[in-house]
Amino acid sequence: MVTRYLKLITLEEARTLIRTSFPHKISHTRVPIEESVGRITAGPIFSKYSVPGVHLSAMDGIAVRSADTRNASEQHPVVPGDARRVNTGNVVPAPYDTVIMIEDVTIDGDRFIIRKAAPPWQHIRPAGEDIAESEMILPSMHQIRPHEIGALAAYGVTDIDVVSLRVGLIPTGSELVFHGTHPAPGQVVESNTVMAAAWLETLGVTCTRYPITPDNPDKIRQMIKRGTTENDLVIISAGSSAGTRDFTADIIRESGVLLAHGVAMKPGKPIIIGKVDGTPVIGMPGYPLSALTVIREIIIPFLSNFGITTPPKETLNARLTTSLHSEVGTDEFVLLSTGKIGQQYVATPQSRGAGVQMSAVRANAYLRIPRNLEGYEAGSEVPVTLMVTRALADSALLITGSHDPAIDYLTDMLQKRHVEVHSTHTGSMGGLLALMKGDCHAAPMHLLCDSGDYNTCFLKKYLPGENLVILTVAGREQGIVSKDGITIDDLVGRQFINRQKGSGTRILLDYELKKRMIDPASIPGYHREVTTHIAVALAVKTGEADAGMCVFSAAKTLGLRFVPVGNERYEIVTRKEHLSDPRVAALFETVVSPEFTATLQRLGGYDTTETGHRRSLP
Amino acid sequence: MVTRYLKLITLEEARTLIRTSFPHKISHTRVPIEESVGRITAGPIFSKYSVPGVHLSAMDGIAVRSADTRNASEQHPVVPGDARRVNTGNVVPAPYDTVIMIEDVTIDGDRFIIRKAAPPWQHIRPAGEDIAESEMILPSMHQIRPHEIGALAAYGVTDIDVVSLRVGLIPTGSELVFHGTHPAPGQVVESNTVMAAAWLETLGVTCTRYPITPDNPDKIRQMIKRGTTENDLVIISAGSSAGTRDFTADIIRESGVLLAHGVAMKPGKPIIIGKVDGTPVIGMPGYPLSALTVIREIIIPFLSNFGITTPPKETLNARLTTSLHSEVGTDEFVLLSTGKIGQQYVATPQSRGAGVQMSAVRANAYLRIPRNLEGYEAGSEVPVTLMVTRALADSALLITGSHDPAIDYLTDMLQKRHVEVHSTHTGSMGGLLALMKGDCHAAPMHLLCDSGDYNTCFLKKYLPGENLVILTVAGREQGIVSKDGITIDDLVGRQFINRQKGSGTRILLDYELKKRMIDPASIPGYHREVTTHIAVALAVKTGEADAGMCVFSAAKTLGLRFVPVGNERYEIVTRKEHLSDPRVAALFETVVSPEFTATLQRLGGYDTTETGHRRSLP
Repeated sequence: MVTRYLKLITLEEARTLIRTSFPHKISHTRVPIEESVGRITAGPIFSKYSVPGVHLSAMDGIAVRSADTRNASEQHPVVPGDARRVNTGNVVPAPYDTVIMIEDVTIDGDRFIIRKAAPPWQHIRPAGEDIAESEMILPSMHQIRPHEIGALAAYGVTDIDVVSLRVGLIPTGSELVFHGTHPAPGQVVESNTVMAAAWLETLGVTCTRYPITPDNPDKIRQMIKRGTTENDLVIISAGSSAGTRDFTADIIRESGVLLAHGVAMKPGKPIIIGKVDGTPVIGMPGYPLSALTVIREIIIPFLSNFGITTPPKETLNARLTTSLHSEVGTDEFVLLSTGKIGQQYVATPQSRGAGVQMSAVRANAYLRIPRNLEGYEAGSEVPVTLMVTRALADSALLITGSHDPAIDYLTDMLQKRHVEVHSTHTGSMGGLLALMKGDCHAAPMHLLCDSGDYNTCFLKKYLPGENLVILTVAGREQGIVSKDGITIDDLVGRQFINRQKGSGTRILLDYELKKRMIDPASIPGYHREVTTHIAVALAVKTGEADAGMCVFSAAKTLGLRFVPVGNERYEIVTRKEHLSDPRVAALFETVVSPEFTATLQRLGGYDTTETGHRRSLP
Repeated sequence: MVTRYLKLITLEEARTLIRTSFPHKISHTRVPIEESVGRITAGPIFSKYSVPGVHLSAMDGIAVRSADTRNASEQHPVVPGDARRVNTGNVVPAPYDTVIMIEDVTIDGDRFIIRKAAPPWQHIRPAGEDIAESEMILPSMHQIRPHEIGALAAYGVTDIDVVSLRVGLIPTGSELVFHGTHPAPGQVVESNTVMAAAWLETLGVTCTRYPITPDNPDKIRQMIKRGTTENDLVIISAGSSAGTRDFTADIIRESGVLLAHGVAMKPGKPIIIGKVDGTPVIGMPGYPLSALTVIREIIIPFLSNFGITTPPKETLNARLTTSLHSEVGTDEFVLLSTGKIGQQYVATPQSRGAGVQMSAVRANAYLRIPRNLEGYEAGSEVPVTLMVTRALADSALLITGSHDPAIDYLTDMLQKRHVEVHSTHTGSMGGLLALMKGDCHAAPMHLLCDSGDYNTCFLKKYLPGENLVILTVAGREQGIVSKDGITIDDLVGRQFINRQKGSGTRILLDYELKKRMIDPASIPGYHREVTTHIAVALAVKTGEADAGMCVFSAAKTLGLRFVPVGNERYEIVTRKEHLSDPRVAALFETVVSPEFTATLQRLGGYDTTETGHRRSLP
């Protein structure tokens, strides 16, 4: 059984198709008001009684008949024939129709003397002042805000009908294991239905995650039947491509109607839209970011058919830091880290691999490249959609350059100060260029100058005359990571894993090799590049390489041996003008904090003698 | 025991006092990842293993050793000595180090023939491409987004430590009854702790609502002891004023430390800040809007001491439609309905009564009048804080003028079309003036002209030459509501409840009284005014008045008798330029819909013959 994609349709066509192929159908469920925050009302809600139910005194004083006070004045004090002492909130019963503040009453034994006429209804909270019996408290389709729960309780409403929706989530794939199981090589943790359920439940959807169904057409068919019987909408995870084990489209075609297979969007192309027993069935691709895109772009908009709507997301214009090329005819979504540098937002793309789920964790925004464009050039203003509040996006500190595990710990410490670090690992030279172009707030780097100094010669060359501040993070040991204690002199003929060109580690390695007159060509794998210390150590751990160069902490974390090659100066550079930016200020304060020094010492491999030292250029 | 306020302190002083009087103290609790959306991480979260754990094929093809393909070309096809068929996602084990797409392979029996050299690591997803073992997934103090649950699951994380906080809520007051109980006269439904719990729980706080404690110092003292033992923070509802039954401040002073009593803000002045057994205790006033303000302005900011932070709210500038005067020295918060008319936001204040909880239900924004100002004049630009998303505020349709129960049903029907109606009940003349000043999108009115026509003579006089569109909602019966069938001719000497001056109902009444030569002075209560039909009917129902004039539906809703006086034309007027506004367009479409006509007929008392009829001026 081999499936072919139907003709690809556009994203807009897919949204229209799914919206118009199924009737609007709103179900509801009754929940106690305490559990209704964020839910959507299924019908209008009316007050059970008037509040207040009777007239209440709004002051401490006496309740009297207004008519009895008519002639009172300073010259002619009056003792109302009938009066009653009331406190704030007490009932003012008939025949009383006004309240006089206690301060304006002279008490003489059990007589009250007044010196001013009181108009009717003075200092009285009339029955129904807040709400009258049967008045509408909330209309239909209103998303309930927390403070409204108090009003509902006060007006006699104990439980309400809210919009409900049952979604069945069917994970398929013989390679899948439940999360919490350590996957064996070739196994994949089933996380897409976990993510989908977590997301949909925030919208008030009731999700059922069915057992993992292997790539077996009969079993998938049975599970779809069960799902469509028990739910208003069924989402099948994976099996939606056009490969040899992708049965879903054919099963839907046989069991019901296959409306579409394949949408011209990326990630997320292999989506299936179908109908089985009248129930919508959506096939969601297996790559995590494809699944995420299908949920966001197709499934959530479709939920409005069931009465569940989400407000439009916030957008802003940002300057793109790198060019993005995209296939004409396909709508592509690119995850971004965006932040404000000076008065302008800049946006740096995350990895575009659909399997790199961390991209979505790191991103705070995304960009849609419309299908009629070939992409965007670096430097162009692009419309960015936020995945966080604008306030949170405004807290982003953009760090681009050399990676060190210490940056992760700085991220952690800065988050406590409400600064959200977005770091992009480009190596030291990448950081230098980003700083030059104004694409980041700060750039970590460790570029060895011929003089033996670090960074200054490069900064003078690439950013001549600029006012820069250099903050020393630490002296840092670089060395050879291996399972068996390989030294730099042993590298010839051993399988190596290298860092990318422009990284400080690569420059240091080349410097040390040259010093020892070792020809890089004699080191197999010298041309295989990864971009972080931990990726180097991991390659050694998995046996892909015998050795690599990285910092001590990366080797230590993965339990590998480490032979030092040399000490270097790992520093963070920023423009002087950014020091007044509270995010950059927080970064600098954190680096000089004793807590950070303690963290470096705990990690090991750092010389903290000069941590927090500050230099200026020029 | 009589309490006095301590010296009032300012809002900023109160915030500083409470923040600095207690140490930062972050507790945490372990939750399954599925329950962690929206919670705040209590520490950094690391990946349990690398993803992928081993190298995987990124294509359907064959895995080979790159070295075995070195000499392959079109002229010199090569059969790699060792090759293995792989599908996308399959493991690429050592010694293979590259993958060739199946399209580029000629299969000859069990031999694979290739015609191009394959560089190492082509079409391979390397181990750790997504994340390496021990890498940080999320930092501390990060609020978890739904899609991150998928990443956590994929990286082997099943449960995490999130920030937790236990808050005890103690309702006090002998007049209180639990919600769900119909309050007897003088009883009040306890809704403030219900509201506080609903609100705080959205922030991940665990709330305990204690039983209602009567106004008995010993019982309150015991309950505070219990609350401070069992919680990180205690909130006492009511009893925080300086009245004869307000014991809370004295009890806190005796049991611990009374840090402040009374904050110069409105609503919310009678707040208490104290400490008992080291635990913060906050006394929250009993009026619902006072309680709401204290939660929003004092308690939620204080939660950052416990690691719970909320992003800043969105603000915008809006033109104030009415003047607001405020006491110098007091920060006042005024609830608003704000919406966009043309390109400008306008804001109309809600009722400022602290007991009118519906104001907070109706409001979508609020204004802080700083203590150094005497208020704001109508027409001034004021900084408004949104209580909803900006998108939702942008969906607001501002309707000002005459009230009719039909408006509530229009509100309900428009909400289904994502238009949020904010209606202000000012009477017909108020609507006319609001339309004139550009303070609303549309104004409902029923102003009887001498000619017998409705509205046009007033519109021509007040908005001369303006392009207006008048939409007929319905012909509407007005009549005398009573318990015993009173007619307009019976009113002399009967207790009456009137509508406010400028309301169409009042104009119609005066017209009918004049026609009958009845002197208003002969009708007791003629000067007692309320602003809605239902308020008139309620006054009759409670016995406050014998009769009033209102529409049929209001009398029917409260089960009262109704004697028709006359038919009138209830219309909605807008400026022609607003017709292209999607919100106004939706209003017009809804009024002409058969569903709306059916609603009017069900309510009764309407002549729908001309419903949806449209007229233009000039």
